[in-house]
Amino acid sequence: MSRSTAVDTALVQRSRRLLPRGMYGHMATAAIGPGYPQFFSSGHGGRVTDVDGNTYIDLMCGWGPIILGHHHPGVDRAVAVQRAAGDCLNGPSPVMLDLAERLVSLISPGGWTMFAKNGSDVTSMALRVARAATGRATVLAARKSYHGSDPWSTPGQSGVTAADRADIDYYEYNDMASVEAAVAAHHGDVAAIVVCPVRHDSYRDQEPARLEFARGLRALSDRIGAVLVLDEVRTGFRLAHGLSWEHLGISADLSAWSKGIANGHPLACLVGVDALRDAAASIFVTGSFWMSSAAMAASLATLTALQEQDAIAHMTRLGTILQQGMAAAAAAHGVQVTVSGPPQLPFLTFAGDKDFAIARRWAALCIDAGVYVHPTHNWFLNAAHTEDDIMEALEKMDRAFAQTAAEVSIR
Amino acid sequence: MSRSTAVDTALVQRSRRLLPRGMYGHMATAAIGPGYPQFFSSGHGGRVTDVDGNTYIDLMCGWGPIILGHHHPGVDRAVAVQRAAGDCLNGPSPVMLDLAERLVSLISPGGWTMFAKNGSDVTSMALRVARAATGRATVLAARKSYHGSDPWSTPGQSGVTAADRADIDYYEYNDMASVEAAVAAHHGDVAAIVVCPVRHDSYRDQEPARLEFARGLRALSDRIGAVLVLDEVRTGFRLAHGLSWEHLGISADLSAWSKGIANGHPLACLVGVDALRDAAASIFVTGSFWMSSAAMAASLATLTALQEQDAIAHMTRLGTILQQGMAAAAAAHGVQVTVSGPPQLPFLTFAGDKDFAIARRWAALCIDAGVYVHPTHNWFLNAAHTEDDIMEALEKMDRAFAQTAAEVSIR
Repeated sequence: MSRSTAVDTALVQRSRRLLPRGMYGHMATAAIGPGYPQFFSSGHGGRVTDVDGNTYIDLMCGWGPIILGHHHPGVDRAVAVQRAAGDCLNGPSPVMLDLAERLVSLISPGGWTMFAKNGSDVTSMALRVARAATGRATVLAARKSYHGSDPWSTPGQSGVTAADRADIDYYEYNDMASVEAAVAAHHGDVAAIVVCPVRHDSYRDQEPARLEFARGLRALSDRIGAVLVLDEVRTGFRLAHGLSWEHLGISADLSAWSKGIANGHPLACLVGVDALRDAAASIFVTGSFWMSSAAMAASLATLTALQEQDAIAHMTRLGTILQQGMAAAAAAHGVQVTVSGPPQLPFLTFAGDKDFAIARRWAALCIDAGVYVHPTHNWFLNAAHTEDDIMEALEKMDRAFAQTAAEVSIR
Repeated sequence: MSRSTAVDTALVQRSRRLLPRGMYGHMATAAIGPGYPQFFSSGHGGRVTDVDGNTYIDLMCGWGPIILGHHHPGVDRAVAVQRAAGDCLNGPSPVMLDLAERLVSLISPGGWTMFAKNGSDVTSMALRVARAATGRATVLAARKSYHGSDPWSTPGQSGVTAADRADIDYYEYNDMASVEAAVAAHHGDVAAIVVCPVRHDSYRDQEPARLEFARGLRALSDRIGAVLVLDEVRTGFRLAHGLSWEHLGISADLSAWSKGIANGHPLACLVGVDALRDAAASIFVTGSFWMSSAAMAASLATLTALQEQDAIAHMTRLGTILQQGMAAAAAAHGVQVTVSGPPQLPFLTFAGDKDFAIARRWAALCIDAGVYVHPTHNWFLNAAHTEDDIMEALEKMDRAFAQTAAEVSIR
């Protein structure tokens, strides 16, 4: 290992006294694999630097939020201007309306939006709006799809009660028959069907939604009077400048957004159709920082820059180069891999790698070489990545494939 | 009415198209009373300015978060420095540990902390830790106490299912017999007892926790092996530089913090004792922005400034002047009021004012005169308030009492 890790190691030791197991949630490196730095000091554009001064081509982007690159000047400026005026006041600032108008017009013209802080805030809020609108309780979600870490959806079971999930049932992604069966099992009590625009569950290859599946969900929701909820927290504004299923001609009744919408500033929003306006007005949800203006100014600047820079096309082009390059490099070394996901959210698995041991080893080699990827969770591109970044990443990945091939054949 | 409100009125009109009912949650002015501006442009020290340029002595402080005053230079500087390095990266920055160390040492030496964004995040997280630790489901909370707007606690019923509250039962604040009865009703299934250090429920006078009640909760929790959770979201670091019940000699197993801990920057944390470390490590909770560093740098700077400025003593002194002044002014005009709450979280009700119509009228007069108070929810002082601010507020309140007295006697 060529990287120095002394500072990180010392901080991890200190962290073990202060946080349960030293870290929790998706950023806990113990759950990712060996070789991952836990603590970071800075990020610039498409790169991130850890506390030992090691710089990585950042293919996680803060797990999604960094969509324009670290320290985008337009976003930084908008935040500075808004913060110099006011951020956390006794009500929102006018920027809230400018942002609401932009989001509603892009996602659900004629509809409405509500702001929050976490992706979980707005996926859970969607359930509440749907229940208020329908007077029903049951919510159907795809088995193993992640919709945040609130009790109804968290992948863990610890601390979750039976009642927390009493009103949740499951279908299989891309399988309309399983949705029909779940609906039938609940005898008309289905308030909402929740779905991600792309199947991006951890620990498996990503899968696009089939057109007939998306159409089927829309038609079934309409037929039974259920609310169709699109969870765009991970996909939002990387796949489309608006709803990710727009190219399929499928609309959502509610859609939940966070992560990329404000280039790293804490913000989430729920967007809904006009027909759900009264239901949305009837629920009581709030948070101390939900109306803070700096993150809203960041979001407005982010949406503007994404469009002005034609960022989705850029991420698609570079992601395609990355995906094709990874597939070619793996093949050249005789390593069987599956490259999956939209180019902007690439992912890679190894054939026969049931416990993800090969993926963890390959990812550790990438990390050591200065490319930040993840062995079990999809990655993210941002608009500041350059073709040079991607070519450099591919060179380093190529050596990691070579090493992995050598080690696997030895075993 | 002397204030101009044209800009606010126009923004509210626009907001009605874009947000359900134009606004939601605790900042929705429609729910507060007449005369309240909905939109704000800036805040400085102890004052806040609305979009029409009207400036108010700010006795709500963003509903709590602004504890040092708007634009505290030390906090602003710490945020700028951290943001210039990195905020939302692939893991935390070292400032997270400095903050964790400070919080743990102040609140629960030898314990641990977990960070989040909303007060609701950490009150709900406390339930999950307690359930993981005990293997029990039931949580007891004081009837009508607010612990955030997650389904188990939100004051609204719309969109909430029976299952959402199946594991919640209620006792009466300051009434140990009611806690004992609730415990008995659940035959040993009590995972946690949740309580606020002060009874600060909306729509009623505030009430300090009686010593025997606090002691009783601690002893009962120990006896039945339940987790005692102190909800410090509203009280935190305004009443004590650490746990608000420390002066009673009562410790909590878990305590939930947000609002004031970062002077308006979005942050929450759960702090727990060592015995609950494994339970806390066993739950899966996370959020996209929970490890962002700028808000943590803000919090560390806030805690430092609070101590260096002896801010609690300052808020206590000015709050006492305010409370005594309000009581005297009301009495001078023959208006019967109850002034309640700790001086740092003052509140005022009018005798016989069941529908809060008098309070709303008086508050509207205060708003019109440039003092931002609330008719049904406790207020907040901050460390930037000056004695001049308070004297000016009292002068204006005095005229509002005079006017209210005249109107009430006419009716």
